[in-house]
Amino acid sequence: MLSPAYLVLVAVLLLLRLPAPAVAGRPLIDRKPAPSEAAATARWLAGENTWGVLSTISSDLSGAPFGNVVSYSDGVPGKSHGIPYFYLTTLDPTARDALEDDRTSLTLSEFPLGTCGKIDPENPTCAKLTLTGKLKLVDRQSSEADLAKAALFSKHSEMEGWPKNHHFEIFKLEIENIFLIDWFGGPKPISPSEYLEYGRNLQGSRMIS
Amino acid sequence: MLSPAYLVLVAVLLLLRLPAPAVAGRPLIDRKPAPSEAAATARWLAGENTWGVLSTISSDLSGAPFGNVVSYSDGVPGKSHGIPYFYLTTLDPTARDALEDDRTSLTLSEFPLGTCGKIDPENPTCAKLTLTGKLKLVDRQSSEADLAKAALFSKHSEMEGWPKNHHFEIFKLEIENIFLIDWFGGPKPISPSEYLEYGRNLQGSRMIS
Repeated sequence: MLSPAYLVLVAVLLLLRLPAPAVAGRPLIDRKPAPSEAAATARWLAGENTWGVLSTISSDLSGAPFGNVVSYSDGVPGKSHGIPYFYLTTLDPTARDALEDDRTSLTLSEFPLGTCGKIDPENPTCAKLTLTGKLKLVDRQSSEADLAKAALFSKHSEMEGWPKNHHFEIFKLEIENIFLIDWFGGPKPISPSEYLEYGRNLQGSRMIS
Repeated sequence: MLSPAYLVLVAVLLLLRLPAPAVAGRPLIDRKPAPSEAAATARWLAGENTWGVLSTISSDLSGAPFGNVVSYSDGVPGKSHGIPYFYLTTLDPTARDALEDDRTSLTLSEFPLGTCGKIDPENPTCAKLTLTGKLKLVDRQSSEADLAKAALFSKHSEMEGWPKNHHFEIFKLEIENIFLIDWFGGPKPISPSEYLEYGRNLQGSRMIS
């Protein structure tokens, strides 16, 4: 017969192996993935950050590349989908630029998440992600606009109260190229479909639905 | 005759009005300037941040605007000059792009400094700065390269040990246009000379020499 102490030990071991209970709003990828998991790392950076730099071809500055600080969201907390949505006004040059030339990139760093520790922001092990593609206006009457607003307003609550007469509109980045540095040895090759489909078939705490 | 209590009170009042003693390495502008002080705010953002997003015209991506996370320094601690210096390798696309087309912008946010509190990163009162100009290679034999290395290595100590065979070089941004949002009402007009000369003639804790 098994001793009570042994049964307690087995119970503790089983408990330690159990996934944490699902909680609404819990991050989909709850810690930095390993460097070998490129698509997971890119999705983690997109899901954990709430702001980045959106670069456009500047119409005010004769075609110079113009980076601007923007807030974004790729889903409500706990439901990250990888597509960045923005809430922009043409009072700001970024939206005006995109309506003339929609080539755009969104750049994110691991550094502000606090997980790089004392590693320099330019060190390749402090991950950095650039999503390049087209910045597109989302039809405000579409169901996609409703999803995008829910994604944006849940992570940026003050947006909902921004002045109506500034005519904010929803934009999204249609991703065509992914540049990820998360380790030594140069950028990791990730296709937009690998990035967007990451997690669809995973079970447990990493499931993205 | 004046009472001892009165003399003590006067001494305390005088002490309270004295400027804080100068300390090596103390920030030149030790708190966020008022929204009316545009050049000071821009210099504060450049001096307090240590990393940002450098955007170039991508040669790999058919001329798309490409933002990349980089570290920079505009002076040794306590001696901010406003010109951002970078330590880049052509193993990375940003330096390669700049050597083909030197049009570049550096984008900085107040948000990672922690002084925006709960204000959204896109809110105009959470300051954002874009310096647009030309990214130029600095002659490694010049005295400017020595100053730039001192500026970079004092704020990014690990840079000094980065691999020699990666051929890092010093680059600088020659600023031609300044875009600052630090309050409601649109970007503040600041000329590059106003920005670069800010503080040269100020006395006391704000003196920049």
